Amino acid sequence: MNSIDYDKASAQVRAVFDDIMASRKVADVNNFWKYLANEPRMLRHVWASLKEIMGPGHLDPLTKELVYVAVSITNNCDYCTASHSASARAKGASEEMLNELYAVTGLANMTNRLAMAYKVPVDEAFKPK
Amino acid sequence: MNSIDYDKASAQVRAVFDDIMASRKVADVNNFWKYLANEPRMLRHVWASLKEIMGPGHLDPLTKELVYVAVSITNNCDYCTASHSASARAKGASEEMLNELYAVTGLANMTNRLAMAYKVPVDEAFKPK
Amino acid sequence: MNSIDYDKASAQVRAVFDDIMASRKVADVNNFWKYLANEPRMLRHVWASLKEIMGPGHLDPLTKELVYVAVSITNNCDYCTASHSASARAKGASEEMLNELYAVTGLANMTNRLAMAYKVPVDEAFKPK
Amino acid sequence: MNSIDYDKASAQVRAVFDDIMASRKVADVNNFWKYLANEPRMLRHVWASLKEIMGPGHLDPLTKELVYVAVSITNNCDYCTASHSASARAKGASEEMLNELYAVTGLANMTNRLAMAYKVPVDEAFKPK
Amino acid sequence: MNSIDYDKASAQVRAVFDDIMASRKVADVNNFWKYLANEPRMLRHVWASLKEIMGPGHLDPLTKELVYVAVSITNNCDYCTASHSASARAKGASEEMLNELYAVTGLANMTNRLAMAYKVPVDEAFKPK
Amino acid sequence: MNSIDYDKASAQVRAVFDDIMASRKVADVNNFWKYLANEPRMLRHVWASLKEIMGPGHLDPLTKELVYVAVSITNNCDYCTASHSASARAKGASEEMLNELYAVTGLANMTNRLAMAYKVPVDEAFKPK
Repeated sequence: MNSIDYDKASAQVRAVFDDIMASRKVADVNNFWKYLANEPRMLRHVWASLKEIMGPGHLDPLTKELVYVAVSITNNCDYCTASHSASARAKGASEEMLNELYAVTGLANMTNRLAMAYKVPVDEAFKPK
Repeated sequence: MNSIDYDKASAQVRAVFDDIMASRKVADVNNFWKYLANEPRMLRHVWASLKEIMGPGHLDPLTKELVYVAVSITNNCDYCTASHSASARAKGASEEMLNELYAVTGLANMTNRLAMAYKVPVDEAFKPK
Repeated sequence: MNSIDYDKASAQVRAVFDDIMASRKVADVNNFWKYLANEPRMLRHVWASLKEIMGPGHLDPLTKELVYVAVSITNNCDYCTASHSASARAKGASEEMLNELYAVTGLANMTNRLAMAYKVPVDEAFKPK
Repeated sequence: MNSIDYDKASAQVRAVFDDIMASRKVADVNNFWKYLANEPRMLRHVWASLKEIMGPGHLDPLTKELVYVAVSITNNCDYCTASHSASARAKGASEEMLNELYAVTGLANMTNRLAMAYKVPVDEAFKPK
Repeated sequence: MNSIDYDKASAQVRAVFDDIMASRKVADVNNFWKYLANEPRMLRHVWASLKEIMGPGHLDPLTKELVYVAVSITNNCDYCTASHSASARAKGASEEMLNELYAVTGLANMTNRLAMAYKVPVDEAFKPK
Repeated sequence: MNSIDYDKASAQVRAVFDDIMASRKVADVNNFWKYLANEPRMLRHVWASLKEIMGPGHLDPLTKELVYVAVSITNNCDYCTASHSASARAKGASEEMLNELYAVTGLANMTNRLAMAYKVPVDEAFKPK
């Protein structure tokens, strides 16, 4: 499917694009939104969720971008890794921080499988009370 | 395979257990290490890596625990989710922070697949220079 | 490894190619089969399975193509997403249907992780009797 | 974390629970929602998305449940497999249909990896015009 | 769904069960086959594929069991990890071999993500000629 | 991030590169190491682990490369599939062996999901004593 640019978008899609641009103080939306615009209902829901959850909350915005990068690497999503790495840099991530993040992501993927291989039982201390 | 307790462990394994206990200021190692002790070489490497990368560095220790939880959820590893959630709490994560983390993890898994479904091309602005 | 075209294929491989072309009423097999021909035993088994399961049965053929697309997106398989999306379109899927399918696939990947994060216990009502 | 029952829920959470019960004509919400209620913002977004996308649209509701089951199996999510299998049965899926669905899901996971193993190039015919 | 024991199985299913028992020289089939018997067509195809590919070929049978275990751990499939570990032991795998296998599986899952994180370009030397 | 060639590398990174080249009797390290050099601590740990575990042990080196390829295909990691397939060939894998490996990898991914779909209970005989 093709991407949908602002000038070809429906009023419904434009309203979401306008909100993205205003919220992020950018002059255009990135490709993800232009493709997702093929499903205007989902465009609206995804934006509403991201706007609220990725914005101010209990975790600082940079931490959330780093988590996003780690999940995207784990799932091998090139687009999401690239876009959220860019967001992380824009929010202050240094190259050293990203390199350490990649290391943590690699380690987690390794120890996840070691725990699965040995079927390690959850320690009593880790169980919720 | 069975877990290997300290009193049945080889000198080589005990040396790693001792270092874990000293570094973490705990009286015993958790189950993950007791099972991994079945492969003493890997026990040594995994501990050496985690000790260095999860310790002081460019990202704060809590952020790294949160990243670990997000990857473990994505891979559906119950043990790692439980153990690193416990570590995150010990390092200051509130329930609100963990709930927000789960939300970010869920969203990332969703948008990863939407980006894959549409084969969204990476924006020029996201490409490394 | 290279793909194996009909004119270079063994009699064993040609027999499978012939059956694919006859069953699907096409003049050539697609790339998947030409590569899989490097392992003639597997070529035969995969084709036999797909021919029977993806053909007439308890689910209509279009539904099965849509399921195939959703799994392929989840696994990030570009080839399978492209080929089964083409099959879905050939069997009547509209762009609106595919867009909705992508949305469902994204949502399932999100709620899968939320259920894992919270370790939600299965409701009694969902347990098989 | 614990599940949040209706009588302990905030007004905000109750509003979502009420809408789920009214939409689905059920007397209580299932466990997934009671756990997700720990993150009321996400509860609201997930329900809003599912309500709209899984409801009437371009694909029939049963097809969407079957897709959901296939993705949940692929991700090894027991809860989601159980809950959406129950929904599929409630919407008319026979045991024969579910068995065939499992077969398709298994085949897709196999051919996904064969396509990845051979790095099969996408056929010209499958490329979007 | 329930498992289907030999005495309740159809003639079609019994024929497959008989062949499994004869091929493996066992008095009963294991649970996997009893559940898969709910979809007799898939039962037949899966058995035919496994019988041929996992039997004598270009790789020795133990190597193939070890590969099976590594993939099953990566996918977090408890049943398959347990059953193929048992098969590996029956074919001569020592505990030391399995421990080393788990280490390799863990390492591969780690370096896979590091390669994805850095988007490492494939070396010329690795490209097929 | 960019790759780091030997002549631009720090003394710390060069020491690892020197050891890789000496151990493998090659004149240069491959791209994986040049990118991982952006995180010198992780470079050191990953090399130390791989050197010990992938070297002489309880499984022969070729078996370990084949396992690595199977995991890399399952995770859809192009780089790792290419590099470990090259290593496997260098250690004696024939094209017939690799083709059979791909078949086993595909089958495992299929039966993993069938076992998950039916939630097959582990046979008593497979349980560790």
